[in-house]
Amino acid sequence: MTRHGIVPTPVFLPVGSQGTVKTLTPEEVKDIGMAMVLANTYHLYLRPGISVIEKLGGLHKFMAWDGAILTDSGGYQVFSLASLRQVSDEGVIFRSHIDGSQHLITPELVIQFQEALGADIIMALDECPACDDSFEKVQRAMERTHQWAERCQKAQKRSDQALYAIVQGGVFPQLRRRSAEYLTSLGFSGYAIGGLSLGETKRVTLTMTEETVTFLPEDKPRYLMGVGSPEDLLEGIARGIDIFDSALPTRIARNGAFFTWQGRHNIQNAAYSQMEQPIDPDCDCYTCRTFSAAYLHHLFSCQELLGYKLATIHNLSFIASLMHKARDAILNGTFNAFKDNFLAGYKPTDEQIRLSQKQKWLKSRNLNQ
Amino acid sequence: MTRHGIVPTPVFLPVGSQGTVKTLTPEEVKDIGMAMVLANTYHLYLRPGISVIEKLGGLHKFMAWDGAILTDSGGYQVFSLASLRQVSDEGVIFRSHIDGSQHLITPELVIQFQEALGADIIMALDECPACDDSFEKVQRAMERTHQWAERCQKAQKRSDQALYAIVQGGVFPQLRRRSAEYLTSLGFSGYAIGGLSLGETKRVTLTMTEETVTFLPEDKPRYLMGVGSPEDLLEGIARGIDIFDSALPTRIARNGAFFTWQGRHNIQNAAYSQMEQPIDPDCDCYTCRTFSAAYLHHLFSCQELLGYKLATIHNLSFIASLMHKARDAILNGTFNAFKDNFLAGYKPTDEQIRLSQKQKWLKSRNLNQ
Repeated sequence: MTRHGIVPTPVFLPVGSQGTVKTLTPEEVKDIGMAMVLANTYHLYLRPGISVIEKLGGLHKFMAWDGAILTDSGGYQVFSLASLRQVSDEGVIFRSHIDGSQHLITPELVIQFQEALGADIIMALDECPACDDSFEKVQRAMERTHQWAERCQKAQKRSDQALYAIVQGGVFPQLRRRSAEYLTSLGFSGYAIGGLSLGETKRVTLTMTEETVTFLPEDKPRYLMGVGSPEDLLEGIARGIDIFDSALPTRIARNGAFFTWQGRHNIQNAAYSQMEQPIDPDCDCYTCRTFSAAYLHHLFSCQELLGYKLATIHNLSFIASLMHKARDAILNGTFNAFKDNFLAGYKPTDEQIRLSQKQKWLKSRNLNQ
Repeated sequence: MTRHGIVPTPVFLPVGSQGTVKTLTPEEVKDIGMAMVLANTYHLYLRPGISVIEKLGGLHKFMAWDGAILTDSGGYQVFSLASLRQVSDEGVIFRSHIDGSQHLITPELVIQFQEALGADIIMALDECPACDDSFEKVQRAMERTHQWAERCQKAQKRSDQALYAIVQGGVFPQLRRRSAEYLTSLGFSGYAIGGLSLGETKRVTLTMTEETVTFLPEDKPRYLMGVGSPEDLLEGIARGIDIFDSALPTRIARNGAFFTWQGRHNIQNAAYSQMEQPIDPDCDCYTCRTFSAAYLHHLFSCQELLGYKLATIHNLSFIASLMHKARDAILNGTFNAFKDNFLAGYKPTDEQIRLSQKQKWLKSRNLNQ
């Protein structure tokens, strides 16, 4: 339960880093069935600036969204998007990925920013190592993440925002356990699993999720950051995850990829050029109710902006429907059968292709490389 | 009155060349108050192909638009967008601006295509000379336009589509008169004024409009092609024009320019960066009802696609409202006062800047130059 409505779990949060779920109006996000969106402190700090949003009445009012909002602390973005200057126990000095300007963030500032933005759930600052960093490096990042989490907790002034800590520990089970136990001992409103889905294999992501969840309290929400493919969502739910976010469904939509219960397809395929049926005849989203696959194919051929929006609506509707069905199955005690049945029919993206795409994408975002 | 609803005049048609009013869903176009949209035979012939749309049940169904549609014949696009191979009395052989493939259009084919698309109003094929062509060249183009109009009339098989002829004659009053009189003698359902708003001064556009309208029947709709700035719409209405179309309001929206009753402004101006009010406090469109100017400024700073859509909604709502007020004023017998009052408060774009922008834009579209 949040100040902005009840959010049934498991829940997927569409990403609206810059205060907009790309291509959609707030009404469209709501109509799709989304109860909470993710926005990003890092992006909003750089543009338009935290004080601008505060002056205009907070983030909900700024983006005209009356549902729930979770703001990420910016930790991940500072370590993936910005040019790093210097990480110290105090905080991080970084350069903006937009104009190269220099900035400092600390745990205290990150809480101050998120209190000004006014999201329903706010995140502690974490240090996010790369998935191939050494044990020692990952351990140091984890320990710093723990200190920062404690400082975030102490810095919190508002009592109406839920503060979540972020478990780190890379791909090392003993670190994951230590991180989960330590943060749990501090007592947060919820716990996120960070530092995954960063280029490691899916098997490792799932194993680390398991190794973490085991040591998290059962009565607090658990949030697996950056996970959003249909198969991963179900695997995460099976392991006890309540909250997910990912730019995947919206990003691939703008590349013409759309989800069906059989797998991911691309509308630019010539097979769709004259297809009178919707892209997914089983789907009752606005896009599938209204337009033929041929029309969508045409919009993408012409690079018409409406195409990106219609594909986004479809993919988010698919994910919302998947989460809704998962919840119903949990309540009916049939989740495992539901999951097996879904996975039997759904052909995920080839793992090798996925990894190489992911690494390419991470690299393209990272100005350090 | 059309097969797809009543269209009160004067009316502005938003441009949806490729079967989509850029960035908007059909519902949004309707909510703005648009009764008819323009689509383009040239664009739809090249992509996705006329037969594809015909097979899928016609253009209304293809784009999920149940309001009225006018299709342009493609004459203007062949002469402005395509690489010309050869114009003869028979028709035009041209090369696609997309892939360079070679195509032939004739008056008969243009009617066949438009009958397959199924618009409510269809246009005859015309030859559209440049605004600085010689008298002789313009006269030859006009005479060919007349022959083609006659052939279009004979080629028409469907009785449920209104066929409009296009008056040519460039900037020469005697040719404009001859063209209007000749086409009127053939008896069309409506008459368009083509070959204007192509880089000539506004004074010339208006003079040529007057010189044409005088010789058109009063009981048939008159359509001034390619005109869409607020001041030009009112000047056109004052001279007896019923129908307008232009990509201007939607194109400039995507560049951040928005209409107000005081003139055109750009949301990217720093003055809007912290403005809590909507971009136009007098406006009751979705954008102005829902978002601050600061939010729109932010979306444009971040090149967020939602910004282009919100600006498009505002600009089309402004034009719809202007046309609605003009109609009310005509019915009340107060149109001249309304127009004078509007023009006294509205600062149009500087004519020199406008002309240089227009010429740059025309040049950028024309692969021949």
